[in-house]
Amino acid sequence: MRLAELSERSGVSTATIKYYLREELLQPGRRVSATQAEYGEDHLRRLRLVRALIQIGRMPVATAREVIAAAEDESLDHHMRLGAATQALPAGPEPDAGDPATETARRTMETLLERLGWYRESDEDEPAPVRRTLIAAVAALVRLGYPCGVEHLLPYARLAEQLAVADLDLVEREPTPEGQIEAAVALTVLYEPVLLSLRRLAHAEESARRFT
Amino acid sequence: MRLAELSERSGVSTATIKYYLREELLQPGRRVSATQAEYGEDHLRRLRLVRALIQIGRMPVATAREVIAAAEDESLDHHMRLGAATQALPAGPEPDAGDPATETARRTMETLLERLGWYRESDEDEPAPVRRTLIAAVAALVRLGYPCGVEHLLPYARLAEQLAVADLDLVEREPTPEGQIEAAVALTVLYEPVLLSLRRLAHAEESARRFT
Repeated sequence: MRLAELSERSGVSTATIKYYLREELLQPGRRVSATQAEYGEDHLRRLRLVRALIQIGRMPVATAREVIAAAEDESLDHHMRLGAATQALPAGPEPDAGDPATETARRTMETLLERLGWYRESDEDEPAPVRRTLIAAVAALVRLGYPCGVEHLLPYARLAEQLAVADLDLVEREPTPEGQIEAAVALTVLYEPVLLSLRRLAHAEESARRFT
Repeated sequence: MRLAELSERSGVSTATIKYYLREELLQPGRRVSATQAEYGEDHLRRLRLVRALIQIGRMPVATAREVIAAAEDESLDHHMRLGAATQALPAGPEPDAGDPATETARRTMETLLERLGWYRESDEDEPAPVRRTLIAAVAALVRLGYPCGVEHLLPYARLAEQLAVADLDLVEREPTPEGQIEAAVALTVLYEPVLLSLRRLAHAEESARRFT
């Protein structure tokens, strides 16, 4: 199909598609003349994925490009490519080594991960972005004096384990490695607003039950 | 305490504190002279909360002000004030009535809420922001062809129910209505990055278990 049809079927304007092509978020079409290119179903699918990462996942364009590039990097093993989306989580602030709340949060996280058996030694000195996010959020809870010890975080982690099993089952339904990687990216990012929305709706229900 | 001490104890610069005062995110201090004001522990606490909403919750300043104002609005009942934080969830795009994926997502959400017994008739024609977010995320999953029917969403919703009970138990530990409202805002917003980080860490574990 031509650019105009790709735009119509995806609901993305031709100007935005051209921008995604320049930014290498979308693979180039097959040149059919000096000014025209031909696009296929793969382009339509990629376009929908990129759109979802940016609009629903609120991912900056540069981050979406990194995620797509890691997912396509054949020098990485399957597990690493599946993890590409994880790296895209906005990182919390750099942990401030001198701050007591941050130190408490870091120790809490380490104890929690050990307790869960999730603790894998990292080669890097710096905590990965997803750990920085966790440390920053727990440090904020510590500063405000809300409960956020290992025993409070453990039930959340157990629920996260259940979600991860369900999520990976969906990923494994895809027959090809490429399909699995796309599914991992899409499901990780798109189920986040689903989960947060359902939690807020559940709060409203539970609050109505208790206080009205 | 004076502004300089408030800044030192909170780790927030005096320029930022003055900005929060102008934006009414922080209640004014008690004037002690033409140029000086005195701040108390309440100011320190509010400052930490505002900082957490903006830095960890990535909430725009205008949104944080709305949340604080609703939480303090004594014309609202306790349940409504507790729900103030819910309104601050970034809303998904306006549902496009003509789009088939959006229509599927909306019907899925309505069936899910009915099945859960969460379905409360709304006075408004427009879905609330949190529902718009859910519809937009499910519509993106529909477009990409990933499973997101009621039977797939139901386990997520059941986990969200368990989280809500645990969260509201923490809220009810606070002895005063004001304390409960602050706790509802802080715990709703700050446990979101905790939950998402733990889900991503759990993904990495589960993926390592299956694929390495």
